[in-house]
Amino acid sequence: MFTPGPLTTSLSVKQAMLHDAGSWHCEFNALVTSIRESLLELGGVSRQDGYEAILLQGSGTFGVEAVFSTCVPPAGKVAVLANGAYGERMLAMLHQAKIAHLALRTPEDTPNDPGALDKALAADRAVTHVAAVHCETTTGIINPIAKIARVAQRHGRSCIVDAMSSFGAVPIDLRRAGIDYLISSANKCIEGVPGFSFILCRRAALLSCQGYARSLSLDLLGQWNAFEKNGQFRYTPPTHALLAFAQALNELEEEGGVTGRAARYRRNHQVLVEGMKRIGFRPFLPPKVQSYIITSFHFPSAPSFRFDDFYRRLSERGFIIYPGKISQFDLFRIGSIGRLFEADIRSLLAAIAETLAAMRITMERPRALTAAGRGAAGVLPPGELPASAARQQPGA
Amino acid sequence: MFTPGPLTTSLSVKQAMLHDAGSWHCEFNALVTSIRESLLELGGVSRQDGYEAILLQGSGTFGVEAVFSTCVPPAGKVAVLANGAYGERMLAMLHQAKIAHLALRTPEDTPNDPGALDKALAADRAVTHVAAVHCETTTGIINPIAKIARVAQRHGRSCIVDAMSSFGAVPIDLRRAGIDYLISSANKCIEGVPGFSFILCRRAALLSCQGYARSLSLDLLGQWNAFEKNGQFRYTPPTHALLAFAQALNELEEEGGVTGRAARYRRNHQVLVEGMKRIGFRPFLPPKVQSYIITSFHFPSAPSFRFDDFYRRLSERGFIIYPGKISQFDLFRIGSIGRLFEADIRSLLAAIAETLAAMRITMERPRALTAAGRGAAGVLPPGELPASAARQQPGA
Repeated sequence: MFTPGPLTTSLSVKQAMLHDAGSWHCEFNALVTSIRESLLELGGVSRQDGYEAILLQGSGTFGVEAVFSTCVPPAGKVAVLANGAYGERMLAMLHQAKIAHLALRTPEDTPNDPGALDKALAADRAVTHVAAVHCETTTGIINPIAKIARVAQRHGRSCIVDAMSSFGAVPIDLRRAGIDYLISSANKCIEGVPGFSFILCRRAALLSCQGYARSLSLDLLGQWNAFEKNGQFRYTPPTHALLAFAQALNELEEEGGVTGRAARYRRNHQVLVEGMKRIGFRPFLPPKVQSYIITSFHFPSAPSFRFDDFYRRLSERGFIIYPGKISQFDLFRIGSIGRLFEADIRSLLAAIAETLAAMRITMERPRALTAAGRGAAGVLPPGELPASAARQQPGA
Repeated sequence: MFTPGPLTTSLSVKQAMLHDAGSWHCEFNALVTSIRESLLELGGVSRQDGYEAILLQGSGTFGVEAVFSTCVPPAGKVAVLANGAYGERMLAMLHQAKIAHLALRTPEDTPNDPGALDKALAADRAVTHVAAVHCETTTGIINPIAKIARVAQRHGRSCIVDAMSSFGAVPIDLRRAGIDYLISSANKCIEGVPGFSFILCRRAALLSCQGYARSLSLDLLGQWNAFEKNGQFRYTPPTHALLAFAQALNELEEEGGVTGRAARYRRNHQVLVEGMKRIGFRPFLPPKVQSYIITSFHFPSAPSFRFDDFYRRLSERGFIIYPGKISQFDLFRIGSIGRLFEADIRSLLAAIAETLAAMRITMERPRALTAAGRGAAGVLPPGELPASAARQQPGA
């Protein structure tokens, strides 16, 4: 799977689920406690520094909503920096929960604008919280969360970051950045299976939210109190997903932590983009704002190209890619995260080239190749694409 | 594990999780659709009858709150029949969500009172919904949900049933009972792993709730619309837990559906209670109101008995039981559900007897044995308890 989560996990992570753990059992509680500590460490903070990690049942969206639902006071207001579906989802949940909010939008290929935030916060004293999405998986764009948090801090507002698809593979230091709440999920860069999200937060910020929670299930403070009291989840935890996650954290450490994982994902992304360009695909985003998490590509210009057919043929070969999520352009997405290595990316590239050949889709001549000649691009060793892919390239 | 969920699942259910499924993938969507259909069938209804099954990420509590959060109108009011922690939890979530409510309490060893509900509904026209817990796992008591639903229906109010720990093993016919919403969870009598809850509901009731939802994550109507649109979860589903659940549903069918499973659990419960009485334990509930799902037992009267020690020693032998949850009495609980058979219950009984012996706890002479003589009870074949258990019994 070349998807942004649920993603490919290691066999050992999945095998950790071949055990039924008692959710009241001391061994299981110790595991939950150690998971919480490891997560803080990955965020560059600790309990001693005044930070807490809270695990919450459900998908990442539940985690993001739990932060709003628990931490925004009744008269609070949230400024949301949005340039994709996940920023829009924040706005939708604020709307549904009847929490006042303000949208600061930029186009989908343009990062959040800290300058616009600065002006908005100066102009609107009612705003209590600023919320942004670190890696907007709608496109794969990386947003400048450290700058955004600094602006929020300067104005004395609380900063919430959805780091769903970046945490664990893109270095984030909560304290240095001045982030009060960061949300991520089990089934992203830590390479666990889906079942829960987690929230890292500044304890003082969390403790100041007493009485605000609009929901019992999504009450982060209640959830934290239960962990504090006896190390347990308030309500039935996804025990198997937690066993898998503990194993995934071990494997992350073995890989060299965030730095090691970042290196692998960056290489995956690099090989992917180079190979896709070579086949004739155009990435949607400029490289400067492109994450190494997930990459959007334009559909081939051939009018006979049908994404459904392309997707189905690839999936029959065992390669699952990801549809697009924006409306203005026809895009599809390929993730570089999960238990994937350079060799897997190269296999996918070969399968894509062969699939296009089978679909009789002729790609436009890639510009780089036109300009510099194929051999001169020289990034990928010759012969790495199968003959069928070479056949696909016009002029070959 | 002799717990009410997370519980012991079969190896084949766990092995179904050794696969990463794509949450957008057609095969996975087909599996989700078939799970939804099977659940309706287990509830004695179908889409043709006007019922729907909705799966929701998170624990059972999330499912219950989603029903309240989505289906109670802004000026609505919920009458909650409570005789344990799960009824109280409903009241807590209504309180936190600022939804008007009314508590109709009975003591923890006394079933919900349909007569009291009748009077309350006649007296309070503001009540729009009635909510009850089928099997209150706090004690193991079974509540008369069919009678409750009938009273609600007669008064024209909507009926919500938390059937968390009964659905799949206690026959329930939603249509005949007149239940509008029934909530249960993956990791109970269907013997899946935790990760999601499910809601069976009358479509017309659900569709009348447009615009009420107080939360995006817990918006059941939104969740249903996504399933309708493309068979997909709105937000990342716990893919592995769903694969396990599909396998668990197969195994439920192989066992003869609800009837077959009920027979096994009933036998488990029967062997458990007879064996525990024989050792000298007293069940908390009278048999008439006792479910075959989970059974509460009084602590032994020996002043030196410490539950923590008892629990730890049993768990070291590989038997995980469940602590009590009520305040007036010192109880512990033993579940009869999950992938457990009569032989497992007998092994547990032997381990309990041996553990008491090791703890030097002397049990009071069981009344039945005193009255009728040990041999005369005759329900359990002689020799089923180990010598150490026999030694434990005073007078042996």
